[in-house]
Formats: sequence, structure tokens, C-alpha cells
Amino acid sequence: MSAERLIYLPLGGAGEIGMNAYVYGYGPEGAERLIVVDLGVTFPDMDGTPGVDLILPDVSWLDERRDRIEAIFITHAHEDHVGAVGHLYGRLGAPVYARPFTAWHARRKLGDYGIGPEAVTVVWAWPEMVEAGPFKVGFLPVSHSVPESAGLVIDSPRGRVIHTGDFKIDHDPVVGEPFDKALWAEAAAPGVAALVCDSTNVFSPHPGRSEASLAEPIARLMDEAEGMVVATTFASNVARLKTLAEAAERVGRSVCLLGRAMRRMIEAGVETGILTDFPKVVSPEEAADIPRQNLMLLVTGSQGERRAASAQLAQGKYMGLELKAGDTFLFSSKTIPGNERGVIRIMNQLSEKGVDVIDDSSGAYHVSGHANHPDLETMHGLIAPDAVIPMHGEHRHLREHVKLAEAHGRAGVLAVNGTMIELGPDGPRVAEYVETGRLYLDGSVQIGALDGIVRDRIRMALNGHVTVTLILDEEGEPLGEPWCETMGLAEMGVSKTALVEVLEADLGQFVGRADAKTLADDDRLEKELRSIVRRTAQAEIGKKPEVTVVVSRLA
Amino acid sequence: MSAERLIYLPLGGAGEIGMNAYVYGYGPEGAERLIVVDLGVTFPDMDGTPGVDLILPDVSWLDERRDRIEAIFITHAHEDHVGAVGHLYGRLGAPVYARPFTAWHARRKLGDYGIGPEAVTVVWAWPEMVEAGPFKVGFLPVSHSVPESAGLVIDSPRGRVIHTGDFKIDHDPVVGEPFDKALWAEAAAPGVAALVCDSTNVFSPHPGRSEASLAEPIARLMDEAEGMVVATTFASNVARLKTLAEAAERVGRSVCLLGRAMRRMIEAGVETGILTDFPKVVSPEEAADIPRQNLMLLVTGSQGERRAASAQLAQGKYMGLELKAGDTFLFSSKTIPGNERGVIRIMNQLSEKGVDVIDDSSGAYHVSGHANHPDLETMHGLIAPDAVIPMHGEHRHLREHVKLAEAHGRAGVLAVNGTMIELGPDGPRVAEYVETGRLYLDGSVQIGALDGIVRDRIRMALNGHVTVTLILDEEGEPLGEPWCETMGLAEMGVSKTALVEVLEADLGQFVGRADAKTLADDDRLEKELRSIVRRTAQAEIGKKPEVTVVVSRLA
Repeated sequence: MSAERLIYLPLGGAGEIGMNAYVYGYGPEGAERLIVVDLGVTFPDMDGTPGVDLILPDVSWLDERRDRIEAIFITHAHEDHVGAVGHLYGRLGAPVYARPFTAWHARRKLGDYGIGPEAVTVVWAWPEMVEAGPFKVGFLPVSHSVPESAGLVIDSPRGRVIHTGDFKIDHDPVVGEPFDKALWAEAAAPGVAALVCDSTNVFSPHPGRSEASLAEPIARLMDEAEGMVVATTFASNVARLKTLAEAAERVGRSVCLLGRAMRRMIEAGVETGILTDFPKVVSPEEAADIPRQNLMLLVTGSQGERRAASAQLAQGKYMGLELKAGDTFLFSSKTIPGNERGVIRIMNQLSEKGVDVIDDSSGAYHVSGHANHPDLETMHGLIAPDAVIPMHGEHRHLREHVKLAEAHGRAGVLAVNGTMIELGPDGPRVAEYVETGRLYLDGSVQIGALDGIVRDRIRMALNGHVTVTLILDEEGEPLGEPWCETMGLAEMGVSKTALVEVLEADLGQFVGRADAKTLADDDRLEKELRSIVRRTAQAEIGKKPEVTVVVSRLA
Repeated sequence: MSAERLIYLPLGGAGEIGMNAYVYGYGPEGAERLIVVDLGVTFPDMDGTPGVDLILPDVSWLDERRDRIEAIFITHAHEDHVGAVGHLYGRLGAPVYARPFTAWHARRKLGDYGIGPEAVTVVWAWPEMVEAGPFKVGFLPVSHSVPESAGLVIDSPRGRVIHTGDFKIDHDPVVGEPFDKALWAEAAAPGVAALVCDSTNVFSPHPGRSEASLAEPIARLMDEAEGMVVATTFASNVARLKTLAEAAERVGRSVCLLGRAMRRMIEAGVETGILTDFPKVVSPEEAADIPRQNLMLLVTGSQGERRAASAQLAQGKYMGLELKAGDTFLFSSKTIPGNERGVIRIMNQLSEKGVDVIDDSSGAYHVSGHANHPDLETMHGLIAPDAVIPMHGEHRHLREHVKLAEAHGRAGVLAVNGTMIELGPDGPRVAEYVETGRLYLDGSVQIGALDGIVRDRIRMALNGHVTVTLILDEEGEPLGEPWCETMGLAEMGVSKTALVEVLEADLGQFVGRADAKTLADDDRLEKELRSIVRRTAQAEIGKKPEVTVVVSRLA
């Protein structure tokens, strides 16, 4: 019982893409010292989370063990890895470690909560190691689609784990370190108990392509385009920004950045020394005076976000700049599933302006930041771990990734959020299931995904809303008729009388006939009034609205 | 002015994919006799149309000219072409013409509104022609993904128009007529003023593949699968149903149909004589007793629809049948943009059950029903029209299709919904812009897209809702404090007091200080109370809710 053990527990990111939050622990069962790897967010949508601003992992399990948390390690600066640091730091309170570019972002996010930069310690690449209780953790540089991404070497008395973080195998990533096979082999040399590995692209059958392969096609496109070129990509893909900007410069186009995230990323790149030779950029005001064929706008909003620069430009003038027939708009990006409608909306708006739209369908203008199926095989082979634990994927990705491991004779462990794995001397085993979940940042407060608040909003969106008010006098007798107000409902139904009037007539009839006992019982009254509204609305307009009943009793 | 003219006017389907409704007219300007081609629906989504059941074209323009409508022609039985016939027939009232399979569906839809089968006249293929005022209209059989699809030959004193309907060029479509090049050439021989042409797949660069090419790969997959096979596709794709069922039969699997739409389509196929040799099917009860390796379920829900058989099977038992590890689930379908989330949800649920999921990514198990770029070139060449008018596409598709026509030296006309084109002796020209729009079938009533009803529902989903009630006595003095009820909002905000209490305190303070003039003015009172709620909620929880204010005055 009291033997020390090494555990792995995903609280987010395993069984979904987004909201990464992984825990490792070492020590006696129930008293393990803990480290956290990544604290990311995922993004809401109208289908399931209308009105929600951000989705965070529920860290209650960690919160309850707060005194046992040694440190928080952030692998890279993507929102799904660093985005929740500010929102959740107050509940965890452990020191944060990251490489400089990532630390820059983590500090910004903590700063929004008034937490000073000293909360984040900048670390250098492996073989430097951070001591965190029983753990020693090193940051192994790896290629991905944001600068200074890292895998983690996690050493414990029970052996070494390698946590890949998000990665691809790119020998020429344009910005940052190429994938260093020798370095990773060296890290793996002492033997690795488990490789906890990115699964995003496990269904992509061909080897991943290098960021560097884009430079030529992009430059050609910009050269051949006759009018202005607008290019969009994820702002955090600093290498892509550089590729796009350099291509523009090569063909005699000035570069103008639009969108706050775009400018902030360049700022972060320059401040942290990642970007030393980014082409000179011009302001939107300067851009307005440059001939269209000599201009390239680099803009935010590759996922069709309504308020980003791409959407604004597609609709009309933005920062004094306007697209015209003959201009070219390049999506140097992939549309994330779920974002299709927004992206297509922009494409059609651009089409209406006579702008030619080019997307990633040819493969020439975008490469993924994640390891494809053959690249995962390379990684497994390089590390030769005792077991592979897929992470960063939906269930189908994790399952396919386990199959891949097993196809090469390795143990594969399918561990979704909440599955605590003990990495014992005889291999991995499920030790426990822990309750996990989601928190919503909703306006300025955090609410639980299961609180029913968002469920009520969805119901109002689907069913509309009716307010019923009834006033009872000092004797408990109705004072006038019940009163209705509707929101989000048709004004008239099948009886060709205003819905509100039909509702009030039916409610009035009920109240008129109700006996003193019913009228004295708030709960019953409320229940009956609600049920009449729903029944009548169903008959009139075919919908059962949400109902708020207010019964006022004069004292 | 009074010269007779030929006009084309899309009211739906041009500038969008879905909700097809096209008008042709011939006669003196403003007194043209009209025919309608297709009356389709489009489907709502949570993003823009929560709670809406169906989206229909706004046919006000036609309604106002009801006495001039000669006939309604339906090209094929897809919902985006025939789906609104029942909902809109009452406003148009003209005879409906369709080929037998399509007529079967149109009659069902009219029957839902109590309209008898005589409203629909069954027609036979071209060269049979229907006389409709100054028009003669023939149904040219064409291959698509539903039986008995037709293009229309539309003759008027001003010449011939060919309206392709939805089509692909398939010489072996499994069910129904192969594409008959000679027939189409014959129809085009007298000269064609305009080809009004499907644009859906204009961005697909390779020639379309035949439905028949799927038989082998599908049979192989079913042969190699070890457990049960479940296949889903659009129910209306009767050819695909046949291919799937025959493949199952060939490898010794019994076929069981799940989902009402699936059974209805087979019924329609059999009743109209389209399907003469569909394999024998077993009931779900019988299926439960058949060994898994000898069973194939053919199910609805290829687009991830929540209530369809696919979704039910992914979640658990359905009709006594349950999927298990080792079973195979085949999406013999393409995911329509916007439906990705629902489809992916099912894929992950299946993954959790250990079911292997196969989708269309290999290309072996699905072909499109629409003509690709090279096929459109073939069609243009075959018909050699004076002008090409792209339809059935978003703006980007129409624009690309115009470019394609122009690249071959033909006139191309970009006409989105509401653009009335006159097909004159000197070629097509824009005659007028007509207001068009959308109607929502919302429960049992039709509401206008711009009525603000759905906008209010979206706002409640994003912002939550607060009800405020205030009672004033006979003297206009507040009787007690204002009362608040919230829906879809966090219960507690930054001040760590219940939101409702903070709201009521702020409202009470205002009411307590309000002068007699303010208290006497319902509008002002309502405005002030609403604004206090929004301000306080913003401060407390960072959201500005929708507010219903009920001020009751005791008489």
C-alpha cells in the first residue's frame, strides 16, 4: 500500500483535441507529489456552449491536492496548452516553468489576473533539468507550428517518461530548432518507461512535409497575383508569418500586419529573440498609399472568427484598407472541424467582391504542425519506450494510435481524461478513475459545465421564453388577469389571434376557476401556469417555450 | 415596353446550396406567365437559426403574382428541391409536375397538408412535353444521386432553355437511366439560349466517378469485416442502398434497414417500379438472431443527425441491436460542411465501443452526385448554349462556374437569388433586382427570417435572460421592491452575493429614489430598470442579459 509509485493522469486533452492538462505524480499512493503539464483551453461553440467565452479543464482534483503540486510545466505557447494558466493559477499556485517564448505568453496571461512575472521561471533546453519534488524535468526542443515547442523528459525514481507535447518531425522549420533526432535519441538512451505522445494526425497516412517546402509555392503565388495579396494563418505560427512575409518581400510587396494577435506574436518573437530578421512592416496608413500589386496584408482570422481582420476585410473596409476585384486572398491554414461555416462565409463574401480565394486544398500553401502516421512510427522507434500512451486526440485518434503502437509490438495504453495510469515495474495499468470535467469562463465568472446554466440558455434558444406574472391580493384572490410577455416566439399562431392573448385567456380561465387551496400554493400555481403556457403554445405555434412564472402576493 | 420577353429569376438556390426555387416567365414585361422550377428547403443550424425546423424560400414575389403561375415543375426528389412543396403550395396553388418517383414524394408532402394526389401530375420523359401557358416543358432524364432526376427542356416563343437540375455524368448509375449523351445532344440540337447549370462541384478538379465503381470495394470491405457491418448513406440515394445491400448479399450478409427515411425510400422505389430487384431485407427482430458476421445494417443518419439510427446505435442499443468491438461502421457518404461536429461525435462514440469506422477519405466508398469541373465542361460543350447561367451553388461556386464558361468563350451570367435575367435576342442581361429572403418553419408556423424572433432567441442563448417585475399601487407608488428572476445566468458574481440579490438591491435603490414623474411613465421605468439590470449584471458576472420588465399598476 505505501510503496511509492509513478502515475500519469490526464485531466484534459485525452479524448478531445484541446484543453490539455496532464498530471504526473510520484510517491506513496494517495500522497504522490504532483507536477502539471500544460493548462490549456478549448473554444466554445453555439451548438453546445452558447455565450461561453472559454472552456477550461476542471481542476478540482488538483485543487483538492494543492499542497502536493510541485510545479506547472508548459510545453508551448498554443492556447490549448497555455490558455488556462491565468484562469486557473489562483487555484493551483505552483511555480510555472517554460521556455522563453512560452514564458512570455504565460506571463501575459498571468498578468491579466494581476500575477507578477516571477510566477513563471524561464528554463533552457535539456539537458538543463528543473527539480520539482521527486521529479526532474527537462525541455527537449521539438519542431511544431509555434516557436520553442518542447517535449518533456520527466525523470522520477521509477524511471523516465517522455511527454512529446505537440510535435512534428521537421528538419527545416524556418523558425526555431529543427527536429534533432540525435538529441531525442540521447534522451531516450537510458530507457523510457512511457512515451506520452501527440495523436492529432494519426489518421494522416503520408509523412509530414516541412515548413520550408512552402516558401517557393507561396512566393510564386505572390509573384503571379496581380492585385493585393491578403494572407491569413494562425498568428502563433511565427514560422509561417516569416515565410509569408519573406515571400512578399522577395517579390517586391510591402508587408502590413492586421489584427492584434498578429502584431503581438511578432512582438513576442522579437522580444524573446526568436525573430531576428523579420521583414520590415508598414502600418495600415502607409499601406493605403502603396500600389496594390506591391502590397501583402498578413491578417488574423484564418478560422473565420467574426471579429478578426479576415472577416472584417471580407465585409468591407478595415483600417482604411479594402479588397477589390483582382485581389487574392490566401488561407495558409487548415479549417479546424466545426469552423467550416465561418470560413465559407468569408470565402463567399470575398467572391462577391471579385477576390480570388486560395485555400489549402492543393497542399502547396499549408503544412500541419503535427506528426503524421509514419512520423509517429519514427518517434516510437526512436524512443523505443516500454509503453506508448497516446494523448492530444479524440477517442478515435487515441485508439488508432494504440493500434499503431501494438502493430509494432509495443504496449499501447488508451487513457482518456480521468484515467489514472500507474507506470509500474511490470508495465502500465489503470490504477483509478478520477472524475473530470469542464469549467466555462462565462463573462467574468467560472461556471461548471453541469450547472445547468448553459443548458437553460440552449433551451431558450430552441424554445423561446414566456414570462407570466400573476398578482394575488391580501386575501389570496387574483388581482386582475395573469399577464404574459414572450421573447423569441411567433406573435401569432393557428387561431390567428395574438399568441399572448390566447395564452392570457387560457391562464385567466384557469385562475378564475382555481380554488383557494390552489391559489394559496405558490409551487402548484407556478407549475400549473407553466404547464398551461406550454400546452397552449404547443397548440398555437407548435413550440413548448421556457417559462418564468412570477406570482406576487400583496402583503 | 410591351414586347414579350423571356425571364429567369432565382428565388432560392443561387448564392447558396439548398432551398432551390427558380422562376421562368414569358410575356409582356410585368405580365409574364410564370413557371416555377423546384421548391426546396434548407436546414437550420444552432449558429444562425436555433429552434427553427426548416428554412423555406420566401415566395412573396410569386404569391403576389399568383394568378400568373402556370405550373410548378420538380426536377428530383431531394429535400432541397421538393421539400417546400407542401409548405408553400397553399400560397401558389398551381399544378405540380414531376416524374413518378419524385411525384411520389411530392404527394406525400402535400398529403401532410391535406392536399390530394391530384395536385401532382406524373409526367414521362422527354420528348413528352407539358404545356404551361406559353411554355412547353420536358423532363430530360439525367444521372444524379436519387432516382429519376431530370433536367428540364423549357421551350418558349423566345427559344429553348435547358435547366440541368442537379446532375452528374454517370454512364452506369446502378439505379435509373445512365447519362444519355445522344439524348441531351438531341435536346440541344435546335439551339439553346441558356444553359442553367448545377455548380456544386465546380471546384472538384477530376472527372466524376461512376456509382458502379463502388460495388467492388464495398463488397470487399464487407467480406473482410469480421463482425457486423453498419453502413450509412443518404436514404434518397437508392442506387447506393442497392449497391450496399447487394454487396452484403454477395458476401452472405442479411440486410436490415433502420430508420424511417430508409424504409420509406425503399417503399417509394418499389411502388414506383424503380427498384425491382432489391435484396430481401430482414426485420430488426430477425436481425437480432443472425450471427454478426452475417449481418449488415443499412441505417439513416450519415450527417450525424442526433435522432437518426446512426446516432442511436453509436450511443447504445437501438431496436434491440447493439454494436460491439470488432464491428465495422461505414460512412458511405460525404459530410456536408457544417455537419462535421455531429459526425465526429458519432465516430468517437463508435471508437469507444471498439467499432472500426471507415469514411469516404479513401474515395473507395462514396462518389458525389454532382458534375465536377471537367464534367461541367463536357455539359457546356454538349449543349453549346448561347449563355451559361450557373445555379445551385454559393457565390464562390457560381463565380467559378462563370469563369469556366468564359474560359471556353461562352457568355457566363452570375445571377444570385433575386437577379432577374432577361434572355433577349442579343443575349442575357440583368432586367431587375427582386427582393428575396427566407421563411422559417418554426414549430407549426411560418415566420420571416427578418422578424427578429430568432434573433431574440440567439440573444437569450448568448446573454441569458432576466425577468424584472415591479408593482405600483393605486397612487403610483412602488408596492414592495422590484423582483428578479434569472435564466441561463451564473448565480453568483464578483461580489460573492447572489446575482439576484445584487440586482434587486440596485433596482430597489433606483425605485426608492425615483420621482413621481418617472414612476408614472411606463416606458421610462422599463428602460431604466432594463438598463440597471444590464449594467449591474455586466459588473457582477460580465454579461449583459436580455431583460423582460413587467410593470403592474394596481387599478
